[in-house]
Amino acid sequence: MTGPRYTELAAGLPATVPFVGPEAQERARGRAFSARLGANESIFGPSPRAVEAMARAAADGWMYGDPENHDLRHALADHLGVAPGNVVVGEGIDGLLGYLVRLLVAPGDAVVTSLGAYPTFNYHVTGFGGVLHTVPYRDDAEDPEALIAKAAEVDAKLIYFANPDNPMGSWHTAATVQRMIDALPDGCVLCLDEAYGEFAPSGTLPPIDVMHPRVVRMRTFSKAYGLAGLRVGYAVAEEALVRSFDKVRNHFGVNRVGQAAALAALLDHDWLAHVVAETSAARTRIAGMAEAMGLTPLPSATNFVTIDCGADVERARGCLESLGAAGIFVRMPFVAPQNRCIRVSVGRKQELDLLEVELPKIATTINN
Amino acid sequence: MTGPRYTELAAGLPATVPFVGPEAQERARGRAFSARLGANESIFGPSPRAVEAMARAAADGWMYGDPENHDLRHALADHLGVAPGNVVVGEGIDGLLGYLVRLLVAPGDAVVTSLGAYPTFNYHVTGFGGVLHTVPYRDDAEDPEALIAKAAEVDAKLIYFANPDNPMGSWHTAATVQRMIDALPDGCVLCLDEAYGEFAPSGTLPPIDVMHPRVVRMRTFSKAYGLAGLRVGYAVAEEALVRSFDKVRNHFGVNRVGQAAALAALLDHDWLAHVVAETSAARTRIAGMAEAMGLTPLPSATNFVTIDCGADVERARGCLESLGAAGIFVRMPFVAPQNRCIRVSVGRKQELDLLEVELPKIATTINN
Repeated sequence: MTGPRYTELAAGLPATVPFVGPEAQERARGRAFSARLGANESIFGPSPRAVEAMARAAADGWMYGDPENHDLRHALADHLGVAPGNVVVGEGIDGLLGYLVRLLVAPGDAVVTSLGAYPTFNYHVTGFGGVLHTVPYRDDAEDPEALIAKAAEVDAKLIYFANPDNPMGSWHTAATVQRMIDALPDGCVLCLDEAYGEFAPSGTLPPIDVMHPRVVRMRTFSKAYGLAGLRVGYAVAEEALVRSFDKVRNHFGVNRVGQAAALAALLDHDWLAHVVAETSAARTRIAGMAEAMGLTPLPSATNFVTIDCGADVERARGCLESLGAAGIFVRMPFVAPQNRCIRVSVGRKQELDLLEVELPKIATTINN
Repeated sequence: MTGPRYTELAAGLPATVPFVGPEAQERARGRAFSARLGANESIFGPSPRAVEAMARAAADGWMYGDPENHDLRHALADHLGVAPGNVVVGEGIDGLLGYLVRLLVAPGDAVVTSLGAYPTFNYHVTGFGGVLHTVPYRDDAEDPEALIAKAAEVDAKLIYFANPDNPMGSWHTAATVQRMIDALPDGCVLCLDEAYGEFAPSGTLPPIDVMHPRVVRMRTFSKAYGLAGLRVGYAVAEEALVRSFDKVRNHFGVNRVGQAAALAALLDHDWLAHVVAETSAARTRIAGMAEAMGLTPLPSATNFVTIDCGADVERARGCLESLGAAGIFVRMPFVAPQNRCIRVSVGRKQELDLLEVELPKIATTINN
């Protein structure tokens, strides 16, 4: 019997996966990692109030979640000083990026991102037949001027720009981002991924302007709020752009337990402050460990520290594998020259104590 | 400033929503419903073991879920007697339908469904530019032979067929469905939505044949397992077709709490049997109430009873609105002639006691 008739686009897509999860690595190595420091999760956990809210919502799990995400959307609007009509809640930034790309990108359309930036964005662009144009990082940071110039050159419909950046941890000031917004070519949408925004120094995030018709700010409960497993993110934009998500989103896609958790987490300012403080202290400690090894920790406005291993991808991979063998899960950037580094998410005292023991052992890798 | 440049397809999509949720109706009426009997949810709730699993998973919510859904997929494979490679887990059947349509349907491609069948499927088809061809219900059931004939006529790439059916509650025997599979036109995929399969009499679901390259069985934890709010469904198919989902799915889209809940629910056979028994008893009681009113309850293999209100859409809407005003949330089919009915999901004793009080009051509507 013949098989299905896939679309030409689907038939041509690679079956690759943006990331292999730590669980798959654990299954391959036959035992769990002792320190899960590779996925930029918040190991400090969610707010205890969010945990309580989830336990309460669990028994109500027989009900579909509110497809309008009304309560969470209104709380976010209050929090951000915008109208509820400027906020769309989705299945994490990953889900929202997929919807945004689907709304804008038809086969052959040009899209601009940085070479080595978020692979899941690229996955969506490729998945909808878009043509990716990339701009190299400059001094380990995304290059706003080059992104804008490239978008103008290729007539891009969409630019992806993360501030702060993953995987390098670097950031630009609000003034720089505002200049980028002001220089945005006509007809081009700027997707400003601020997943790590809560960790950034003040003066990093420009004010939200919901009158601009082509700027989408994306934020998440997966990082500082410690709810990566619950799949709740949101986008903030001009009302017409927000409304367009209703044409393609999975209306019942956000789970009810996640809705409850996100709402409770948003209202627990003390826990957020605690996580941000712990994250900052952990970054400092990780940076100190790297320096003690003669390695260079890059400045970070996120919940991870990217460490320059001082040579190339081979050395970085050696460091990653040595740490992995010692039970410490970390990741590394995908492309040169960023892939001379490893990326270590912040941890609690126990994870960092282990890192402090194991990191010096990679000296043999470094000195090879 | 000019707006975004949407794709031609997106620009042409309506901003309609497949369903307005009960929460939106509650906000509009200014108070909660007393009985939530409109969304075919399992008001008997999830397995207590699933509730415990969710509470445990909540504190681990800082971790992304396993993107391979490994443990759940393997448990499902054991449960179904297939290989793990024949199972893909997704964000409810809604999410999986979206992926399947995206894999198969390009603008202009023909798709066949029944007139008045699941609107979310139609939403996805329209969303990807497919052309829907519909076949009328026959005796309040989907019409397998007519669906196959229509698919051959229009050279459809995909047929949607739900067994048991929503919104009518009707069903076909496994033998009939098997004849449909055997008659499937070359190059056409049959999406067999078995969301209500656990409620159906034995002999309703044909054996799973994972060697057939063009039959996808979709099932869910939203109905009998009482986890609608957790967003976990799965599709079972030939391995190559299952693998194709990896090209387009949101790999980290299934939430971790839902993964844990679904696994616990799947293993609690006693709770499932309890829910199925309670559902059956509630169906009988609802049917009796309808008959006592002189209305005709349709036979049901699901967790709802569709009641023929004896006239047309106006009378059915009157009944729905009267019940709504009395605090009882129900729904009704969208198109004629099915929309002469209302659809009442099963409830516990307290909801059915209320229904027993309020249902006779719609007599004035019926006798108008």
